[in-house]
Amino acid sequence: MSVYLVGAGPGAADLMTLRAARLVARADVVIHDRLVDASVLATVRSDAVVIDVGKRRGSLPTQRSINETLVDFAKRYECVVRLKGGDPFVFGRGGEEWLALNEAGLVAEVVPGVTSALSGPLAAGIPVTHRGVSRGVIVITGHGANGDFIDVAGLSRGDLTLVILMGVESRARLARDLLEEGRGADTPVAVVERAWTHRQLTTRSTLDNLADLDVDAPAVIVVGEVAALDFSGVLEAARVGGA
Amino acid sequence: MSVYLVGAGPGAADLMTLRAARLVARADVVIHDRLVDASVLATVRSDAVVIDVGKRRGSLPTQRSINETLVDFAKRYECVVRLKGGDPFVFGRGGEEWLALNEAGLVAEVVPGVTSALSGPLAAGIPVTHRGVSRGVIVITGHGANGDFIDVAGLSRGDLTLVILMGVESRARLARDLLEEGRGADTPVAVVERAWTHRQLTTRSTLDNLADLDVDAPAVIVVGEVAALDFSGVLEAARVGGA
Repeated sequence: MSVYLVGAGPGAADLMTLRAARLVARADVVIHDRLVDASVLATVRSDAVVIDVGKRRGSLPTQRSINETLVDFAKRYECVVRLKGGDPFVFGRGGEEWLALNEAGLVAEVVPGVTSALSGPLAAGIPVTHRGVSRGVIVITGHGANGDFIDVAGLSRGDLTLVILMGVESRARLARDLLEEGRGADTPVAVVERAWTHRQLTTRSTLDNLADLDVDAPAVIVVGEVAALDFSGVLEAARVGGA
Repeated sequence: MSVYLVGAGPGAADLMTLRAARLVARADVVIHDRLVDASVLATVRSDAVVIDVGKRRGSLPTQRSINETLVDFAKRYECVVRLKGGDPFVFGRGGEEWLALNEAGLVAEVVPGVTSALSGPLAAGIPVTHRGVSRGVIVITGHGANGDFIDVAGLSRGDLTLVILMGVESRARLARDLLEEGRGADTPVAVVERAWTHRQLTTRSTLDNLADLDVDAPAVIVVGEVAALDFSGVLEAARVGGA
């Protein structure tokens, strides 16, 4: 019995790694969340068991029940792939699932994926680092595991790019806190919705307007000077369909 | 004429994306740096022109001459792939090359890769985020573009993971600065050399010992509580050879 915690990448099926693609095509069971794109799921074996454990606000399944589902199938099937959008360990809670499997006597193999945190901006032509503009990147999430909110103290440096995952709902508070921390009101921001899919949409503005933007989850929020750059210029089709 | 700025991923050839693999197999010209693994280069067409522009300290080529090489080949060949270790825009200077091509009237298409910054730690079983341990991750580089050194003010928070790329040489100074900023001497650190290759090596210690560790570049340095975790337990062969 083999169980794998696999990153599906940011959207388009061909942004999976070769290793992930081979496992997805081989799996007897694929357990995925709602951030995994339909184009990726289309590559699953037709006779495989496919389980959507996408967590939606106010409804089950909880992380605990996801862990239980995973352990249950991993004990009964030869090849189980737990497929997560982006990378399984960048806010993917892969660690919790790894531990749950381990407690059940199973060792999951991990396959990294292209994280939405860094490639989401790139889909909009925004480099998270760029010489003379950004010397590094900070990745945080907009909501805490228990509803607690991240303190942005120290995260308002002008020479670093701030990327916020799952921050659409809390963007008003994030913007306010960053402004209070000293980030300039005119700091460029960009919100990239559904990066690397056919429905990608980028909204650019400034930090003082972030709260008022008409944007929806799932999206990646970029705060920093790089958000004013645009190294794209490619046809939209090329982004999603492959080169 | 088509030119692509492509991430090769962190090491093993099967951690390239499907899109990258298809382009590498199709390219007339592949221009790569020294962080691209031999297993990746083995997938290049046998009749393709392969150019190593790996920058080594104190020797040419400079970034400027790399840009010139890239523009020159992009004008003369049908399909040119500029292949970079990890992701081309996470300290990959992809933006500078994109601009150089743009100034020459060419638009490069960008293909993201699995960045070594986040997958390097994972190769050693270290999750960069983990519930209750790390609420986010900061990625910086250990040396500046002009030899200037990054200020670590604000980057010493205990609830965030700090990942340092290209930091082996400057690790004594980084450790000293982080200690002065208030990071505890007993903060776990891990140095992952040549992640996702057959020669991978992980050294774990604490921040006060970082300067004295016997480690070599290329390596990823992880500073933070997650560096004490180990979600691996897989056979070394599985890491590099695929699942």
